[in-house]
Amino acid sequence: MITLYTAATPNGRKAPIMLEEVGLDYRVRPIDLSKNEQFEPDFLAIAPNNKIPAIVDEDAPGGPLAIFESGAILVYLAEKTGKLLPASGPGRYKTLEWTFWQVGGLGPMLGQLGFFAGRSKTKPPEAIERFTEEAARLFKVMETQLGRSAYLAGDAYSIADIASYAWTFAASTMIKQAAPAAWGDNPNIERWLKAVGERPAVVKGMGVPAAS
Amino acid sequence: MITLYTAATPNGRKAPIMLEEVGLDYRVRPIDLSKNEQFEPDFLAIAPNNKIPAIVDEDAPGGPLAIFESGAILVYLAEKTGKLLPASGPGRYKTLEWTFWQVGGLGPMLGQLGFFAGRSKTKPPEAIERFTEEAARLFKVMETQLGRSAYLAGDAYSIADIASYAWTFAASTMIKQAAPAAWGDNPNIERWLKAVGERPAVVKGMGVPAAS
Repeated sequence: MITLYTAATPNGRKAPIMLEEVGLDYRVRPIDLSKNEQFEPDFLAIAPNNKIPAIVDEDAPGGPLAIFESGAILVYLAEKTGKLLPASGPGRYKTLEWTFWQVGGLGPMLGQLGFFAGRSKTKPPEAIERFTEEAARLFKVMETQLGRSAYLAGDAYSIADIASYAWTFAASTMIKQAAPAAWGDNPNIERWLKAVGERPAVVKGMGVPAAS
Repeated sequence: MITLYTAATPNGRKAPIMLEEVGLDYRVRPIDLSKNEQFEPDFLAIAPNNKIPAIVDEDAPGGPLAIFESGAILVYLAEKTGKLLPASGPGRYKTLEWTFWQVGGLGPMLGQLGFFAGRSKTKPPEAIERFTEEAARLFKVMETQLGRSAYLAGDAYSIADIASYAWTFAASTMIKQAAPAAWGDNPNIERWLKAVGERPAVVKGMGVPAAS
């Protein structure tokens, strides 16, 4: 059994989508960020960076294994099950490069755009402009890539798509309203959002944790 | 032979340090960011995200393989050589979680702090405060972790340390001047910076590409 510590955020949805895709049993332990539960000692012992998601796999060889960072969780579950990340060859590294692209670029930049165009108290124009331009650049890169292949890392759906889905979905809805210039004309991304969003595992994973 | 496309930036230094550590032959093709060489078609064919570093491994099984994203390059070179990333077990996923932690957290947040506390025209206080606090939080996490073990992912030096070294070195020098509150009292990080910085491969890799 795997215990999943998560919350209803774009990063928090990657792990439940993956768990649904690979068909592993898991139980959900919601972490209430509004109550600062991510700073409680029990959670910090699992996730020393005080961020969701994290998992504990009680059935790992050698005993229970705790893993934090959504990208590391995706790779772990892919390697545990042999699914959604090729074991070797070019497809493996295309999948990893687009997974790291999301973790290091799309995620943090959309997160900052969401903050400065939304929750910020002073809404500094230079910050809004900076992250709007960077989001638009990243979506152009994504749009071009999805014009070349059905999925981010090629013709096969992979952990790279799972990594990018929840953030791109958020951008196509909330962030598009807050910073319209960040979201251009992206027919290939729209096609991909629909195809990925219709997968039963994605529908289920996007609902975890359930609204309280 | 591996061709390395890079520039003298913290992300650009991860790949040459790794190539030196694992002892693979490589040639350097500097990308001049001040001349926008990262947008030239030849480079975009290798790195569609228009960012350094990228590599082309001419000796990959099945023909030349291009890889972008510094994190993916570290994993590729580790798996190619069987060095600095365990092939299985808890050590593998501890190494990957701290590598993703750098790629998704330490790197982007220090990059934004460096911008807003340094090159920004309007120096918005809310942005400087936000990224200063986040950098201080990340260094506290790192300091705590390096109080538990010699290296980020445990007792063995790994790609997680290579990923974090150049950014932490930059923070301990340039960023510390621009935003002193981001850098607290970090004796374990200082010890780690010295140990990693004295490795011959790190000394060589930090000098690639050579100053022109």
